[in-house]
Amino acid sequence: MIEIPFPQNQENEPLERSVFFISDGTAITAEVLGHAVLSQFPITMTSYTLPFVTSKIRAEEIRNQINNLYQATNIRPLVFYSIISSEVKNIITSSDGFCLDIVQTLVAPLQQEIGLEPKPELHRTHGLSKKNLSQYDARIAAIDYALAHDDGISLRNLDQAQVIILGVSRCGKTPTSLYLAMQFGIQAANYPFTADDMDNLQLPADLKPFQHKLFGLTINPERLAAIREERRENSRYASLRQCRIELAEVEALFRKNKINYLNTTNYSVEEISAKIIDSMGLKRRMF
Amino acid sequence: MIEIPFPQNQENEPLERSVFFISDGTAITAEVLGHAVLSQFPITMTSYTLPFVTSKIRAEEIRNQINNLYQATNIRPLVFYSIISSEVKNIITSSDGFCLDIVQTLVAPLQQEIGLEPKPELHRTHGLSKKNLSQYDARIAAIDYALAHDDGISLRNLDQAQVIILGVSRCGKTPTSLYLAMQFGIQAANYPFTADDMDNLQLPADLKPFQHKLFGLTINPERLAAIREERRENSRYASLRQCRIELAEVEALFRKNKINYLNTTNYSVEEISAKIIDSMGLKRRMF
Repeated sequence: MIEIPFPQNQENEPLERSVFFISDGTAITAEVLGHAVLSQFPITMTSYTLPFVTSKIRAEEIRNQINNLYQATNIRPLVFYSIISSEVKNIITSSDGFCLDIVQTLVAPLQQEIGLEPKPELHRTHGLSKKNLSQYDARIAAIDYALAHDDGISLRNLDQAQVIILGVSRCGKTPTSLYLAMQFGIQAANYPFTADDMDNLQLPADLKPFQHKLFGLTINPERLAAIREERRENSRYASLRQCRIELAEVEALFRKNKINYLNTTNYSVEEISAKIIDSMGLKRRMF
Repeated sequence: MIEIPFPQNQENEPLERSVFFISDGTAITAEVLGHAVLSQFPITMTSYTLPFVTSKIRAEEIRNQINNLYQATNIRPLVFYSIISSEVKNIITSSDGFCLDIVQTLVAPLQQEIGLEPKPELHRTHGLSKKNLSQYDARIAAIDYALAHDDGISLRNLDQAQVIILGVSRCGKTPTSLYLAMQFGIQAANYPFTADDMDNLQLPADLKPFQHKLFGLTINPERLAAIREERRENSRYASLRQCRIELAEVEALFRKNKINYLNTTNYSVEEISAKIIDSMGLKRRMF
């Protein structure tokens, strides 16, 4: 059961709304898109994500929750939903919530342009089917590859890498490699430069044959020191001085070897990944 | 530059359309939603994903590509876009493509319901800001945790796990743990049962204090054998007989210890993760 708080609408406070993300699948698309849409309004929200809503009984429970919330607060809950079964869908849309079909809203205008009837039964985002199984296996293989080639663990099979990410410890190499594998099925290796490498820093001989696959990450020294401090408090490793030295050396190496690089300080792992794909001309696969 | 093929419209063939996903950000939301919408139509598509479109010059290049494609094929390209700057946006929408604003289409009906003006400048899905930095750091910490507690590497700090995933080798533990961390900021450990454990299989003593956090994964023996065969061809490890023995033992252990478990054969890592979250009542964080 979901606990339902009672939003209180105070003057001069941002408006509070209850928001439901309801789907017959993972509800990930409903969540991501719903947040993008709602981020444009100056409101705060209490959100409920309800995946795998495939039965009428479950839908009726949720309708009751929505209706109870409305009756208790007199504020209509917002409902972002994506459900194929019209029986289940109709139960949700008959609730007191303000209901938006995140996929269908875009399907309707497209239908006219494409001139074909939509077939909702085809739809299963983030699902697995015979059609996409080999692609899915390639994605899992990419995750395996990222793990086996994380942090310079193995320099074998670098010919199979689509990109080799370079940088100092804690600049974002590992999460980026994993995200590239997870979201896009891209085989990414990564290689760290450590404090010991800093005297006369050179591009390792093992990496030279793959110069066209190299991509560098850097970060502001202050942010790096803060991240490292979380890991090893009051260490030389986390000192601003050490961070500055390492970053200056590594950036000089990137420039000397004409390696494209990106300062990750203000970017999320999604943004870093998308920028690498764009910069290297890699193919984005979809899952 | 993007190579532009010329789709040929043949009778009895599924309709082919060119599709652009254009964004001033990563274009991940445009891609995911666009694919969900288009999967409802019996068409095949050639897709172009264009992230970080923030300048008028870049937008004009893309408009030319769209227009050239239309003139060459006489079929309107479909354009899913999400761009904040109205100057940049207007260049895209003045193209010959059939343009759909993936976020704004939903913002318009909401505006009336909420009764507030939208402020598009607030919007940056998958972005990093001072506001969400500590949440972002928690997400990176969750990825670190998943890596440090992958495959039973470390049984320390299991009290910090939100879920401990159990199962035989190659049933989906590692990708699921990483996805839970990456997408939802959930700290997930995982623990493997190996062939050596199979005589008199017991729940390891180290896991017993955390029984309420345990979640089991299983898989059909045929699918497991196929996955293992990719890894170690013609091995005992990959034999159907061995897969059957391990899965029967582990499923018996799940049942005996009243551990919730899921057969992953037909589920993607997104679906497995969403089902674990749902079953364990974990909190989904958004990034």
